[in-house]
Amino acid sequence: MINEQSYAYGASKSSIREIAAYGAARKAEIGAENVFDFSIGNPSVPAPDAVRESITHALTLPAIALHGYTPASGLPAARKAVADSLNRRFASGNDTYSADDLYLTCGAAASISIVLNAVCNAGDEVIVIAPYFPEYAVFIQNAGATCVEVLADAATFQIDVAAVEAAITERTAAVMIDSPNNPVGAVYAPENIEALAEVLRAKTVEFGHPIYLISDEPYREIAYDVQVPWVPDFYDRTLVCYSYSKSLSLPGERIGWVLVPPTNPEHDRLVPAVAGAGRKMGFVCAPALFQRVLIDCVDEPTNIEAYARNRKALTEGLSRIGYEYVEPQGAFYLWMKALEPDANAFFERAKSFELLPVPSDSFGCTGWVRIGYCVSYDTIVDSMPAWQALWDSYRQ
Amino acid sequence: MINEQSYAYGASKSSIREIAAYGAARKAEIGAENVFDFSIGNPSVPAPDAVRESITHALTLPAIALHGYTPASGLPAARKAVADSLNRRFASGNDTYSADDLYLTCGAAASISIVLNAVCNAGDEVIVIAPYFPEYAVFIQNAGATCVEVLADAATFQIDVAAVEAAITERTAAVMIDSPNNPVGAVYAPENIEALAEVLRAKTVEFGHPIYLISDEPYREIAYDVQVPWVPDFYDRTLVCYSYSKSLSLPGERIGWVLVPPTNPEHDRLVPAVAGAGRKMGFVCAPALFQRVLIDCVDEPTNIEAYARNRKALTEGLSRIGYEYVEPQGAFYLWMKALEPDANAFFERAKSFELLPVPSDSFGCTGWVRIGYCVSYDTIVDSMPAWQALWDSYRQ
Repeated sequence: MINEQSYAYGASKSSIREIAAYGAARKAEIGAENVFDFSIGNPSVPAPDAVRESITHALTLPAIALHGYTPASGLPAARKAVADSLNRRFASGNDTYSADDLYLTCGAAASISIVLNAVCNAGDEVIVIAPYFPEYAVFIQNAGATCVEVLADAATFQIDVAAVEAAITERTAAVMIDSPNNPVGAVYAPENIEALAEVLRAKTVEFGHPIYLISDEPYREIAYDVQVPWVPDFYDRTLVCYSYSKSLSLPGERIGWVLVPPTNPEHDRLVPAVAGAGRKMGFVCAPALFQRVLIDCVDEPTNIEAYARNRKALTEGLSRIGYEYVEPQGAFYLWMKALEPDANAFFERAKSFELLPVPSDSFGCTGWVRIGYCVSYDTIVDSMPAWQALWDSYRQ
Repeated sequence: MINEQSYAYGASKSSIREIAAYGAARKAEIGAENVFDFSIGNPSVPAPDAVRESITHALTLPAIALHGYTPASGLPAARKAVADSLNRRFASGNDTYSADDLYLTCGAAASISIVLNAVCNAGDEVIVIAPYFPEYAVFIQNAGATCVEVLADAATFQIDVAAVEAAITERTAAVMIDSPNNPVGAVYAPENIEALAEVLRAKTVEFGHPIYLISDEPYREIAYDVQVPWVPDFYDRTLVCYSYSKSLSLPGERIGWVLVPPTNPEHDRLVPAVAGAGRKMGFVCAPALFQRVLIDCVDEPTNIEAYARNRKALTEGLSRIGYEYVEPQGAFYLWMKALEPDANAFFERAKSFELLPVPSDSFGCTGWVRIGYCVSYDTIVDSMPAWQALWDSYRQ
């Protein structure tokens, strides 16, 4: 018989994808220039030229070698390229990374799903910091665990460590964070991560089993005038999930990785657990051609200037009108207060002005919207009269 | 805590991959020309030139469009290209396929995993025809179901329909077949599939719930002088899983599809169930660049001449020595009788002659080995003295 959970996940799209689909249809109806679609996190910056050059070069290789199966964890040269890059950027003392600590994946969703299936057992709990990327809940449920939402600090949107501490039970398998954060754009401060690490260390002792910290970092490279702390420096039992969807603008190509730092006390059992989780879910290997792209492009700089310019135009424009928002430190989302308590009602009104943000309820809290500014600069500038009209409609 | 099932799947490689790894190490030790590795199903025929041309052309597109997220089910144009190809080859009367019946996947393992998660519930049973591709058992278990092995007909290696009938219980969610078959090379005859379909129809009525037929068809294009029947013509509740790993020699690139034929009575609920299963397992979309390759290459002919030549050299050579085997009608595997009842012992002795087939125990039965002839022609010819020496060693 049809699996009702699978059916439900397929019958109801994620609300982000639903709004994006509405946006596409509406653009076809009234013209693209008249719809301001801020819904989906599709990078508006193209992949660097080096990606095209890398693929062109790869096509000179014999096709059998180029397109053949790779080891399940990825081409050794690709994993080494990633490890070397991590070492250049983050290694401290003896904590260096090697190819064997890395498992290449089919993108961020695969990285997260695989890690969850490596460290969760039926009945476990995984804590997320709300507002959070809604698909986390789907992946956590599919790993047999329950998603436990803990609200971020209401003033700073940093991790509310006391609230996390209160939420940890003997069933807690992991805490999941992403910094820079989607949807808020917060970057967690070193002292915030350190405080969380202390709690996790204490709770690991208290409950007598490891509590892992899953650090989902697709937005690491997109940060504005702030350093993004390297989480394994703070907590040994960290598992890092990464994707090149945003940093190299390759979201459709599905390429990322999981890092099991060698400082993790269970490293030698976690590495096979990650590989086994990938195997049992049907991830045979990451796409081979894009594994080779990593060898060439792992250190390509992300063009954050375009996002910084968009961020400036958006925040200045909305400020001038009077909107309240969280100043984004990273990623390409603005978290803005809705003009009424019901974010869905606010969204519906925004929609009538052809503005398409995403209401906060999908992210696990009420009263806000997410504005994705990974759009063209013109979209932001041209949307300002609509934001003004929306504001005015609440002042009549 | 670490998920022990994931750990176990990662700690023990599939025996095929283990033998292949031994083969690679042994080649490095004594020279590639002295090791006859028949273990892994990596195509020995390169991808057609049209693949390189398609990628080269795609690289002229704007990078944002080229590498961006696609719809979860795949680019409409890619799904339409596949549907059109299926219609040209298999459509009968009104049973035509459309883009909406297709869900593009990250390869065969994803196709199978997704279909199993769409139609299985905890405690269900899925019947496989032994000998069978060993990862089926892994994917079935991960869908919460039990893998029930039914031996193929001992003489013909066709489906033993009476044995399948006897194995069906009220918990049977699906029967899984692949034709051309890995590891035997059998192609199921129309009357064999029709007999199975009759049993499945009767059992669906008897137990009051649908029993699906999952047809895994990565070897469809590799058949020798025999038509491979199109399974949906025989049974409405068929779900077809496909991959371009073998037909286009792209195993590392992870591209395939699931077809829900419109004749399937639950079609309209199965389509979202497939999409939802993919979503919950973390498959966001199939690799975008290779979705575009399908648009150009979906009808590229598979170069089966090379495999046919290998098959001829292998079967003639082994016949001459005296080995018994099943004449392969498709795929690129030869199913050969071990020279002693214990296939593992036979494998160990073969290994001492630098011959690396795969013992049959991994495929769910005893006393045989699988010889993958997706190798160079020279490997086959050059291996004959070793096969002769192995034979002689049993005659001393």
